[in-house]
Amino acid sequence: MHLRVITRFIAILVFFLGISMFGPLLVSVIFRDGSSPALLASALITSSAGLLLFISTRSQTNKHLNHRDGVAIVTLGWVVAGLFGTLPYLFSGVIPDFTNAYFESISGFTTTGASILTDIESLPEGILLWRSQTQWFGGMGIIVFSIAILPFLGVGGMQLYKAEIPSPVVDKLKPRISETAKTLWKVYVLITVVETILLFAGGMSLFDAVSQAFCTMPTGGFSTKNASIAYFNSPYVDGVVVLFMILAGINFSLHYRLIKGDFKTFGKDSECRTFLILVGLFVLVLTLDIYGTVYRSLSEAFRYGAFQVSSIITTTGFVTADYGTWPALSKLILLTCMFLGAMAGSTGGGMKTMRVMVIIRHGYQQVFRIIHPHAVTTVKLGGRPVPQDVLSSIWGFFMLYLGLFVVATFIMAFLGLDMVSAMSSVAASIGNIGPGLGMVGPTNNYLSIPTVGKWVLMFCMLLGRLEIYTVMVLLMPEFWKK
Amino acid sequence: MHLRVITRFIAILVFFLGISMFGPLLVSVIFRDGSSPALLASALITSSAGLLLFISTRSQTNKHLNHRDGVAIVTLGWVVAGLFGTLPYLFSGVIPDFTNAYFESISGFTTTGASILTDIESLPEGILLWRSQTQWFGGMGIIVFSIAILPFLGVGGMQLYKAEIPSPVVDKLKPRISETAKTLWKVYVLITVVETILLFAGGMSLFDAVSQAFCTMPTGGFSTKNASIAYFNSPYVDGVVVLFMILAGINFSLHYRLIKGDFKTFGKDSECRTFLILVGLFVLVLTLDIYGTVYRSLSEAFRYGAFQVSSIITTTGFVTADYGTWPALSKLILLTCMFLGAMAGSTGGGMKTMRVMVIIRHGYQQVFRIIHPHAVTTVKLGGRPVPQDVLSSIWGFFMLYLGLFVVATFIMAFLGLDMVSAMSSVAASIGNIGPGLGMVGPTNNYLSIPTVGKWVLMFCMLLGRLEIYTVMVLLMPEFWKK
Repeated sequence: MHLRVITRFIAILVFFLGISMFGPLLVSVIFRDGSSPALLASALITSSAGLLLFISTRSQTNKHLNHRDGVAIVTLGWVVAGLFGTLPYLFSGVIPDFTNAYFESISGFTTTGASILTDIESLPEGILLWRSQTQWFGGMGIIVFSIAILPFLGVGGMQLYKAEIPSPVVDKLKPRISETAKTLWKVYVLITVVETILLFAGGMSLFDAVSQAFCTMPTGGFSTKNASIAYFNSPYVDGVVVLFMILAGINFSLHYRLIKGDFKTFGKDSECRTFLILVGLFVLVLTLDIYGTVYRSLSEAFRYGAFQVSSIITTTGFVTADYGTWPALSKLILLTCMFLGAMAGSTGGGMKTMRVMVIIRHGYQQVFRIIHPHAVTTVKLGGRPVPQDVLSSIWGFFMLYLGLFVVATFIMAFLGLDMVSAMSSVAASIGNIGPGLGMVGPTNNYLSIPTVGKWVLMFCMLLGRLEIYTVMVLLMPEFWKK
Repeated sequence: MHLRVITRFIAILVFFLGISMFGPLLVSVIFRDGSSPALLASALITSSAGLLLFISTRSQTNKHLNHRDGVAIVTLGWVVAGLFGTLPYLFSGVIPDFTNAYFESISGFTTTGASILTDIESLPEGILLWRSQTQWFGGMGIIVFSIAILPFLGVGGMQLYKAEIPSPVVDKLKPRISETAKTLWKVYVLITVVETILLFAGGMSLFDAVSQAFCTMPTGGFSTKNASIAYFNSPYVDGVVVLFMILAGINFSLHYRLIKGDFKTFGKDSECRTFLILVGLFVLVLTLDIYGTVYRSLSEAFRYGAFQVSSIITTTGFVTADYGTWPALSKLILLTCMFLGAMAGSTGGGMKTMRVMVIIRHGYQQVFRIIHPHAVTTVKLGGRPVPQDVLSSIWGFFMLYLGLFVVATFIMAFLGLDMVSAMSSVAASIGNIGPGLGMVGPTNNYLSIPTVGKWVLMFCMLLGRLEIYTVMVLLMPEFWKK
C-alpha cells in the first residue's frame, strides 16, 4: 500500500469534481433558480479540499502502483466523490438529511439512479444538472475501471479483456489508465453529444436534452422529470433513448473500434451478438405478454415493452410505464434482466452478458462430460478457450453476487420490507438499476426505506458497481497486512 | 446402451412394485374401505407386467453396465414406477384424471409431497397407505442412487463420496449397487421402525404412525391428514417428527457408521456440522422473527419455527403452521431453505449442503486471490482439497439448477400464475419439497395449476430428484449416438 500515492489520486479526483461544480453553478445563475450560493460554496470547498490534499502529498508519480493500491483508489474514489457530491444537496436545502443526501449522491456516482426525491420538477435547475452530472462522471469512472483496471486485477473474468486494451504497457498501471481513459472518454463524450442533439432536435429544451443524455450514457436513469421519460410522451424521444441505452450497454472498446472504421470486430463479437439477441428475445416475449392485457395496440405494447426491457437490461432505470402492474411473466422478465445486465466494458451493471454466457456454456459442458467422461472439453468464448482460472473467477463473482443478494435481502426483510420490495430493492441496487418492484417500483421511490436500509442499499450499489471483489478485498484482514 | 439389461432392471422394479401393492390391499381389506378391488387389480397388473417383461428378456446379468445404462435405468425407473403408481388412484376413482394421478404418483416417488387432493381424510385407508408407500420407496431409491450410483457418474460433485461406499468394486456397477443397497436399506428400515414406534407411543393410531413415518424418512411430506402434522396438535409429535426429519436430512452413510459404533466420523463430518449449524441458525432467526408478531409465547414460536425450518430445509414439506402469513424475513428464510436442501447422501432434495459449502468457499478463495494473485490456493472440504473437475461439476450443477428454476418459472408465469406462486411452485418442485407459497402455499394444493403447468412441475420434480444431470443427458442427441 502506498498511502501517499493513493491520497494524491483521490486529491486530483476531488479537485476536478469541485471544478466541475462550476457548470451547474453557471446553469443556476442563468436560470436564477436560487441555488447559486449553495453550488458556489460546494465548488469552492470541494476544489480547495482537493488542492490542499494534493499539495500536502509530495510528488510520487514515478512510483509503481500495485494491485492493492488500485483497489483502494477505486473504492475510496467512489466513496469520497459521493461525500463531496452531497454538498450541493445539503447546502441548497434540497435534501437536508445527510443519509438521504449521501444516498442520492452515491446512487448518482454509481449510476444506479435510485432516488429519495419525491418532487423532482420543483428542484432548482442547477441542482438537477449536478444530479445528472454525478451519473455522467460515474459512467466515465466505470468505463476506465472496467476496461483499464479490472482486467489487470483479475476480477470476475475481466482478464479476458486484457488483449483489448490499446496500451501495450503491462506492468505499470498509471500510463495505461491515462492513455485508455483519454481514448474511451472521447467516445463517451461524442456519443453523449450526439444524443443531446437528437433529443434537442426532437423538441426537448437544451437543459432537458443535456440532462437526459447525461443519465443515458452512464446507464444511470436519473431524470429531470417526476414521470421520468414518460413525461415527454413522445415515441421519438422513447426511440432515441432506447437506441442510446442499448449503445451504452455495449462494450465501449467496440464503439471505439467502430468509430475507427473497424466494423468487422463489432459484427464478430459474440458477447455483443448474444446481448442484442437477448434484448430482442425479451422485447418480443414481453410485447406479446402485455399486448391485449395492458395495451390494446401491438405498436403501443412494443413501444413500452422495448423501452422497459432496454432500460432494465442495460441497468439504466428510465421509466415510461408502470410495469409494476404488468402480468407476472413480464415482471419476471424484467427481474431477470436486473440480474443479467449489459455487456462487460459498458457502463451497465448487473452480472454482464459475458459472464452469463460463460456460465451457461460451462453448464452445458458439464452435461456433455457425463456422456463422455474422458473427453477433454473447454468452455469457449468468441472462439477462444476460457482458461480454468478465468472460469473460476467468473464463478466466484457469480457466487458473491448471489450471496450478497441473499444476505442484503434478508436484512431488508428484517427491517420490515415485504418480500417483493426487499428482493427487488436489493437486486436494483446491486445491479445499479434504480427502480425495482413493490414499494420501490417505478411509481415510487426510496424515501420511505428505513435509514439502516438506505445504508445497506448504498453498500450494495457500491459493491455492484465495483464488481463486488474490489470492495470485498478491502474488508478482508489479509488486505491490510504488511 | 444395453437395452435388454436396462429393460430387465425395470422389469424387476415393476414386479416388486406390484408385489408391494399387496400391503395396501391388506390394509384396505382390514379397514373394509372399498378400495380392495382397485388395489388387487393394480397389484396383479403391475406384478404380471414386471414378470412378463422379465421373462421376455434373456438373462444377461454378467454384462457390465456402463454410465449410459445407469443413467437410463435410473430415469426410466422413476418414470415407469410413476406410471404404475397411478393405477390404484385411477382404478379406485380417487383421482379419475390421468394427469392428476400421475402428478400425485410422481410427486410421491420423487418424495416431493406436492398434492392435488383436496380432502385427504375422506380417502380409503388402502389408497392412503399406497400414497405414503410411494414416498417410502422413492426414498429407498434415492439413497441408493445418491450414494451408490451418483459418485460414479461424476454428477455435481458427488465424486467426493466415492470413498465412502462400502463396496471396494470400482468398475462393475451391479455388485456395488446390491451390496450398498442392502446395507443402507437396513438403516433406512430401522430408523423408520423406530419413528413408527415413537409416534405410536405418542398416541397416534398404528396406521397413522406408519403412514407419517413412511413420509418422514424419505423427506416426502405426504400426510394422512388434511392439516398435515398440525392435525395431531401435539408438541410431542412435532418433536418426534422434527428429530426424524433432521435424521432423514443427514447422509445415510453416517447413520450406517453410527449404528456400527463409529461416533467419530459422525462428529468430524464437516458437511453434517454445517447442516446442523444452518438449521440452528435459521431456527433461531425465524423464531425471533415470528415471536411477538405471530406467536405470543417464545416456546410456541420456537415449536412452529423449528418445525417449519426442519421441514423445508430437509425438503420434507410437512406443515404445522400457515407460514404464508408469516413476516417477510421468515418467508425468505424458508425460500432460502428450499434452495439449500439437506445433506448429500440423504433422502432430501435441493442443492445440498456440501455443494453450497464448496461454492461459498470457492467465492471466498477468489476474493483472497485478488489480494495474493500468485498464491496457489485450493478449496477444501473436510480437510481434503476439492479437485478442479469436481469444483467444475458442482458449478455446473448450480447453473443447471438455477437455469431450470428460471425457465420453469417463466413458463408457470406464462400459464397465468402470479410471481410468488410461479417462483415457489417451481422451487418447491425442483427441491422436492411440496408446499410453496401463494396459491401452492401450506393451506392450498396443486389442483388448480393448469394441466401444462402440472407436467412442467412433474418434469421439475424428476430433474430435481435425479440431480438434473441424470435426466438432462437423456435429452441430448449425443447420448443416443452409436
